[in-house]
Amino acid sequence: MANEELEALRVAITETDNDLLATIAKRQKLTHQVAETKIKHHIQVRDQVREEQLLVRLIKQGQEVGLDPHFVTKLFHVIIEDSVLNQQSLLAQRANPEASLPINRVAFLGEKGSYSYLATQKYFARRSGELVEIGCKSFPDIIATVESNEADFAVLPIENTSSGSINEVYDQLQHTRLSIIGELTHEINHALLIHEDVELGKIKTLYAHPQVFAQCSHFLAELGNIEVKPCDSTSAAMLVVNELKSPEVAAIGSEGGGRLYGLKAVKSKLANQKENHSRFIVVARNPIKVPLQVPAKTTMIMSTVQSPGALVDALTVLKDNDIAMTKLESRPINGNPWEEMFYIDVEGNIEDGPMQKAVESLRDMTRYFKILGCYPVEDVAPTRVAVASSLTQ
Amino acid sequence: MANEELEALRVAITETDNDLLATIAKRQKLTHQVAETKIKHHIQVRDQVREEQLLVRLIKQGQEVGLDPHFVTKLFHVIIEDSVLNQQSLLAQRANPEASLPINRVAFLGEKGSYSYLATQKYFARRSGELVEIGCKSFPDIIATVESNEADFAVLPIENTSSGSINEVYDQLQHTRLSIIGELTHEINHALLIHEDVELGKIKTLYAHPQVFAQCSHFLAELGNIEVKPCDSTSAAMLVVNELKSPEVAAIGSEGGGRLYGLKAVKSKLANQKENHSRFIVVARNPIKVPLQVPAKTTMIMSTVQSPGALVDALTVLKDNDIAMTKLESRPINGNPWEEMFYIDVEGNIEDGPMQKAVESLRDMTRYFKILGCYPVEDVAPTRVAVASSLTQ
Repeated sequence: MANEELEALRVAITETDNDLLATIAKRQKLTHQVAETKIKHHIQVRDQVREEQLLVRLIKQGQEVGLDPHFVTKLFHVIIEDSVLNQQSLLAQRANPEASLPINRVAFLGEKGSYSYLATQKYFARRSGELVEIGCKSFPDIIATVESNEADFAVLPIENTSSGSINEVYDQLQHTRLSIIGELTHEINHALLIHEDVELGKIKTLYAHPQVFAQCSHFLAELGNIEVKPCDSTSAAMLVVNELKSPEVAAIGSEGGGRLYGLKAVKSKLANQKENHSRFIVVARNPIKVPLQVPAKTTMIMSTVQSPGALVDALTVLKDNDIAMTKLESRPINGNPWEEMFYIDVEGNIEDGPMQKAVESLRDMTRYFKILGCYPVEDVAPTRVAVASSLTQ
Repeated sequence: MANEELEALRVAITETDNDLLATIAKRQKLTHQVAETKIKHHIQVRDQVREEQLLVRLIKQGQEVGLDPHFVTKLFHVIIEDSVLNQQSLLAQRANPEASLPINRVAFLGEKGSYSYLATQKYFARRSGELVEIGCKSFPDIIATVESNEADFAVLPIENTSSGSINEVYDQLQHTRLSIIGELTHEINHALLIHEDVELGKIKTLYAHPQVFAQCSHFLAELGNIEVKPCDSTSAAMLVVNELKSPEVAAIGSEGGGRLYGLKAVKSKLANQKENHSRFIVVARNPIKVPLQVPAKTTMIMSTVQSPGALVDALTVLKDNDIAMTKLESRPINGNPWEEMFYIDVEGNIEDGPMQKAVESLRDMTRYFKILGCYPVEDVAPTRVAVASSLTQ
């Protein structure tokens, strides 16, 4: 009886979901046309004044049909983010027709199910062309695979909200000719993955990447008496658990990745720090041109002369040209204990006037200077509206 | 020409957005009926197996019309979260008819625009009844306002991802008879708020709450020579900037809050730590009953005898009853240097068998034990699907 009632309602919900998808697809076609018009007439992709008007109107209209303003805001942030990223992607592809390949061969760390694999899937879902995944064992392997033209792109983790910068990747970037052509942020949610239903207390052996163990140390302490087995990658850990098919073993990795190995998540958010994101960069043999209509970031490396204030002087050049720095990372140079290499991310397009001026000054004043790449910003800041005030208007 | 083209496209987009809202409202009515059926037949609110099937189907169907699987997943996570929260809210209201008031008088820290104000708006948007906001100057004031029946509820920040637990609030909870009846998480995004367009370099004075200055110390260091003026609350800082109407002053607070004072955000995400969320609790004079169909949390405080292992023994009781702990906080007891008070959050409903057994044991073995409240979990964990595998099926 209850089941019949629920079934009928669910059929009706399915219909509305189908309508939703169809309407969203229609909206996407329209925003694609908007992008074409913007390309033709050199108009900026984002128009936050319009977005704000849109949100305020939608919130009001939503309230009239009983929808929570916070829900409507959140929903349209997701829709607008998708629309902005699609428009940016279209512009970038038009500006770099040679980079649009029928097949994208992408190198990444680990195998199917690793966090780098999931980030690769996410980034290339927005690009045209078929995706061919090339799992690699180490960061130098990944770089070599692209340099030797066995892969077209590589996806590399560069920093993590809990563990910080991934120095190994920064060190690789110092010695390669590859260019950064994109970035993305991906949520890292460590879950306990098992092959069949077991009680937590029955698990005797836990497989994971050593860095994952470090990030989940509080959870491991809670578990108590358990044997911990380090693996080369998260995907390797999943594979072992999939093959052992025992109720006494488990892996730590992403829930989505685990499903690829038939594993079930029994507990998630295992990391000590609850908010856990990684930023990945995408590299290729050739740099790309970022259209000026799209917000861009530029990554550069430089080494300054060993004099007090040399770095400050370099950063002042950026400030004087009104260029915002989003990241500064320093790494020692192998064999040169008196020098440091600085990695700097700034907001700006390398083809922009102030940026070119700044780069010219920096080249003059540093011992070594290189642009690692200029690429579209993937972090679409949501347009905020005063939800409360729109409630009372 | 470009404008005409864009205008026509935008009219079409507005139409699809209207369709979207209408369909979402229709879906919400259906899920409301689902909730009614579930209440009648005592069925759990969430059915993650069904959610997973739903997502897999929607992702596939979305791909057929050219939608990115990650976008579809994100979109329906927002829709499902809203649906689950609405169903939970309906169940909780049915189980506590006496707590459904025609007017909800809510006490919180600061005034219009403070983070506590925004959290209050968000929480009560989902409840029936009119909201009357009562801004207070301090945490003891807030508690007193509810205890004396000048307010029905209070919204209190209890922990923050960057600054940790808010000890002042924990200490208040030790001495009050109020009960926790709800929780919510709210994003804290500090933005630089100004009255009119100015260059960052022109700002001479910055108003904010002292804790905000602490959380944004890196940004302040970057700004350099600027005078910093501490205020009682974020809303007080906004009010000053609104009244001064000078291009040389700015406040730090939320973008949404700033808009209530006619202020514009020129830079956001100012905090040292990029991920910044606060967890708030909602308290009232009487505890509520949480229906067993809804995931619940229980907060308790206890002091153990001063013997090594007394706390471990208490925690073992929870473990033995298979009750997961989500937070443990210890606070010294004023005047009793040999004792500590422990605040423990666990997953579980106080009316559940294992929980009652655990509580009974804990009462026996502790010097002091009190349930601060049992309330619905507001954090709706999204159902994960293997996006990548659904791509290839």
